[in-house]
Amino acid sequence: MTPASNDAARYLEFAMDVIEQAGAIALKYFRTELEVINKAKKREYDPVTRADREIEEYIRGRIRETFPNHAIIGEEFGYQSGGSPYSWLIDPIDGTKGFITGSPMWGVLLGLMEAEYCITGLLRQPFLGETYYGSPAGAFLLDHAGRTPLKTRDTRSMDEAIVCCTHPGMFLTEDARRGFDRAARSCAFTRFGTDCYGYALLARGFVDLVVEGDLEAYDIVPLIPIVEGAGGIVTDWQGGSANRGGTVVAAANRALHARTLELLNS
Amino acid sequence: MTPASNDAARYLEFAMDVIEQAGAIALKYFRTELEVINKAKKREYDPVTRADREIEEYIRGRIRETFPNHAIIGEEFGYQSGGSPYSWLIDPIDGTKGFITGSPMWGVLLGLMEAEYCITGLLRQPFLGETYYGSPAGAFLLDHAGRTPLKTRDTRSMDEAIVCCTHPGMFLTEDARRGFDRAARSCAFTRFGTDCYGYALLARGFVDLVVEGDLEAYDIVPLIPIVEGAGGIVTDWQGGSANRGGTVVAAANRALHARTLELLNS
Repeated sequence: MTPASNDAARYLEFAMDVIEQAGAIALKYFRTELEVINKAKKREYDPVTRADREIEEYIRGRIRETFPNHAIIGEEFGYQSGGSPYSWLIDPIDGTKGFITGSPMWGVLLGLMEAEYCITGLLRQPFLGETYYGSPAGAFLLDHAGRTPLKTRDTRSMDEAIVCCTHPGMFLTEDARRGFDRAARSCAFTRFGTDCYGYALLARGFVDLVVEGDLEAYDIVPLIPIVEGAGGIVTDWQGGSANRGGTVVAAANRALHARTLELLNS
Repeated sequence: MTPASNDAARYLEFAMDVIEQAGAIALKYFRTELEVINKAKKREYDPVTRADREIEEYIRGRIRETFPNHAIIGEEFGYQSGGSPYSWLIDPIDGTKGFITGSPMWGVLLGLMEAEYCITGLLRQPFLGETYYGSPAGAFLLDHAGRTPLKTRDTRSMDEAIVCCTHPGMFLTEDARRGFDRAARSCAFTRFGTDCYGYALLARGFVDLVVEGDLEAYDIVPLIPIVEGAGGIVTDWQGGSANRGGTVVAAANRALHARTLELLNS
């Protein structure tokens, strides 16, 4: 191994261990009576629970202990600077609304960026016992059946495509709403309520597109190496980097991605 | 036991066995490559797979063998007359769109009506290993943890309520769309993509309302004893029987139900 790939393997091993423990914390609270606090500022309803906070504190503690010069950006506790090119993104529970309704469509997200590039990203769904991850060594699902390579599918025609989206109300402008409607109407059907799990379904080849709006960096960045390592592509609606969140399109392949951008922006 | 309760216990035991076997058939096809046929007549896209057909054939066979004078109504193979007051309703996979996208938000539904009253209803989600059922003996969840009584929650205030719905496009008239929007806007938040599983989450006390449109009888009838046995209430949007499908509201309690009907019809 080169020193760089050696580092990559070390980061992945660390992240796999941390996210598995973090998932166990989530599971301790899932489907129990939990106090839900509405922390909405820009959104109408934006719930947070003790589970979100405990998970993020746990992950932050592990990172500080092991990589004290890495920066950390998390949903609940904000930004902590590092002093190296590395920064970790944490979404302790992506899909808190799903989590508090007892649905299994949520996950713990953890990503490691080197400068502007997410080199390792993980999604842990502990209720289903699944970890989806992407790194320089490829994108895989780890579950009870072992390790399976992830592979998006080769649907070329928009009218055969299945599109996922967390909520039809997640688009902030009238233009974005119209763009989403145009893309959605061109597809076989849309499936809402998916949160991060929609990207996992895309990476597994069960759906073809995820089209969303109003995302934060920690909602999407950890998912990029999973989708792209599986053969897909993730950008914003203008075809640029999705690293800052906002409007995002994830597609199973380049042909569908190009057609979706046309529909979103026409 | 009286002869009537003896019969009820026998029907439930039969239905539990049948739906567990039916769930095993579904699981054999879940997350595999499946040919999907679009059988749309009134809907834009209405998928059916070999799994739907094989499950319904299996259940029909078991019913004919055991209760030859009971009528059968199923999604894929229509109506077969009986000659007794009993009829079975089958939705082999409620949430076929969820099923073919690899989401766990689907289930096998089976209900037994005596004249106009569903006396036993079951929802089997085999991927999660859960059976939700309601009968004259009460409503329960059977899973790896054993048998747990189902209990809806006592949320009284609309602005604390969580509402589930399979898809915002499932309302057939402009009036219905407006009614749903009024109800949804009055709640804490809406969660889409739920299919039959939304009613299970309601019966467990994780959400407060399910508001839907364009349902068939077999989509909703088997769920009524589960929700009502847990303390909830299921009607159409006029407050009448939900036995024929159409527009449906399921609520955790009578106060929320009454307020929701007002909003849907105001």
